[in-house]
Amino acid sequence: MGVSKVLISEVGPRDGLQNCGSVMPFQEKMRWIRALASAGLREIEVGSFVSPKVLPQMADTADVVVEARKIDGLEIAVLVPNLKGAELAVKAGAAKITLPLSVSETHSLRNIRQTHDQVIAQAVAIVAMLKDLPVGQRPYFEGSLSTAFGCTIEGPIPERQILRLAERLLDAGCDEIGLSDTTGYGDPHSVRHLIRAVRGVIGDDKVTGVHLHNTRGLGLANALAAYDEGISTFDSSLGGLGGCPTAPGASGNIVTEDLVFMFESMGIDTGVDLDALIACREILAGAMPEEELYGFVPRAGLPLGFKGAPVPVAVE
Amino acid sequence: MGVSKVLISEVGPRDGLQNCGSVMPFQEKMRWIRALASAGLREIEVGSFVSPKVLPQMADTADVVVEARKIDGLEIAVLVPNLKGAELAVKAGAAKITLPLSVSETHSLRNIRQTHDQVIAQAVAIVAMLKDLPVGQRPYFEGSLSTAFGCTIEGPIPERQILRLAERLLDAGCDEIGLSDTTGYGDPHSVRHLIRAVRGVIGDDKVTGVHLHNTRGLGLANALAAYDEGISTFDSSLGGLGGCPTAPGASGNIVTEDLVFMFESMGIDTGVDLDALIACREILAGAMPEEELYGFVPRAGLPLGFKGAPVPVAVE
Repeated sequence: MGVSKVLISEVGPRDGLQNCGSVMPFQEKMRWIRALASAGLREIEVGSFVSPKVLPQMADTADVVVEARKIDGLEIAVLVPNLKGAELAVKAGAAKITLPLSVSETHSLRNIRQTHDQVIAQAVAIVAMLKDLPVGQRPYFEGSLSTAFGCTIEGPIPERQILRLAERLLDAGCDEIGLSDTTGYGDPHSVRHLIRAVRGVIGDDKVTGVHLHNTRGLGLANALAAYDEGISTFDSSLGGLGGCPTAPGASGNIVTEDLVFMFESMGIDTGVDLDALIACREILAGAMPEEELYGFVPRAGLPLGFKGAPVPVAVE
Repeated sequence: MGVSKVLISEVGPRDGLQNCGSVMPFQEKMRWIRALASAGLREIEVGSFVSPKVLPQMADTADVVVEARKIDGLEIAVLVPNLKGAELAVKAGAAKITLPLSVSETHSLRNIRQTHDQVIAQAVAIVAMLKDLPVGQRPYFEGSLSTAFGCTIEGPIPERQILRLAERLLDAGCDEIGLSDTTGYGDPHSVRHLIRAVRGVIGDDKVTGVHLHNTRGLGLANALAAYDEGISTFDSSLGGLGGCPTAPGASGNIVTEDLVFMFESMGIDTGVDLDALIACREILAGAMPEEELYGFVPRAGLPLGFKGAPVPVAVE
């Protein structure tokens, strides 16, 4: 069964912004990230070390990491597509790096122009690089299985292929394997099933986080299913920023506000102040006025008498 | 654990339309109801026997029931606030009648101008009236606990009060007790907990259906939680029609399309053809152009290779 406390990993500055048509200026990004951290978010994926030609929205990622590290108690996560990106992440001082391995090889080639073997080779090279670092400078290294619940190009991916890739990433030396519903194809049954299957192969402690989308409205139901399996880290983005370029009007990421509300309503501590979190939407809307912001709780307001999860008492 | 087949009870023509500013003409209603039934919905709440002065949208309910009874295989459900409404429902030939008892007495007084004692007295009178009918003409009689997960006026309602009202409705002679999240205050934990608590008091077989709202985005997660408890009947409305007058931009009812998609994705049979269901939106949008229609699946489309639940093979 589920844990009493979950970690909400805000991915808006990365997964959200990289899907936006315009580029958020550095100072706006930092203002937004600081507000998110002030609302109680303890992990934020602040950017991606990819070519600025491909994703100009991410061009200032190194500067963002350096600046965001000054925020007390915040874990800085970044995405990297290869060894070069990982080196830049280490240089900037990121605490967590995620390498995406799309279980659909077609999607992997379109997304980061690498075959499965090439991504695994990058993972091996990244681990070798990380091993030479002093322990204090070594970021946590996650391999993330993208399109794990189906691909918009290939459709469903055979489970044996997914399990084999999870094993290969772990063998390469990743600290943990994440499961990503990149396409919003997952459902509560497939989420539960795949978590159990991957854990069965690589161990329960190697699968603690999921990256779920809300493209078909099942985001929170899928998060609940994952929570019931004991998953403790959930990716989401403020206002569901990110969308899905191929599905106008359908949000991409799970809306952080609604996700926090669900857990807090259930008495599960997120550490997030919902009112402060909802107030962050104004900063985002001001900086990116053309983006549609999603979320039910910000519109409906909190229930009368809503208290959220009890705040844990610090033990001295 | 959950069942392999669920009943989706479409409440758009009642809960949806009664919250709309304009009145849907009779012929449009029938066209919509016929299309919903053709898509595979087997139970539709087609209206409410309330004063046409209060809800002019429901003034033609008797005619709608009579006409809808001609649709093969469709169960016709209606809402009634009192004995008079139940008599009209019986006269028209409804197969199921639901009497709402708001566990918040303040809400009950505002909604149907009756105290708890008065609603229970109506339930007793309805049962007495039904008992005199020949078995074939006797509709199924559900007592529905409204605001069961909290009230926008009173806030949370004490559980002992809810359990006591469930007992009283059952003692009055209701066939079954439904749980309604009228305000969208429920969460997966409270949904599971209340189902268990009420069943513990009145018996598992007396609680088989829930009426959940999506006001704060938790509709599908709550439905999943209820399903996991063995609930088999779920209310929802096409396009989430109904909204919530006090929360602009936040939908009221669960969107039937998304709910059907969730269950079918999980391999749970709903009997509904999703493409045909989504096509019903055009009829609704044409008849009520000023209403906002919700739903993620209609916008994002079905996943590549989506098959839904296997169609059960009829056993001769």
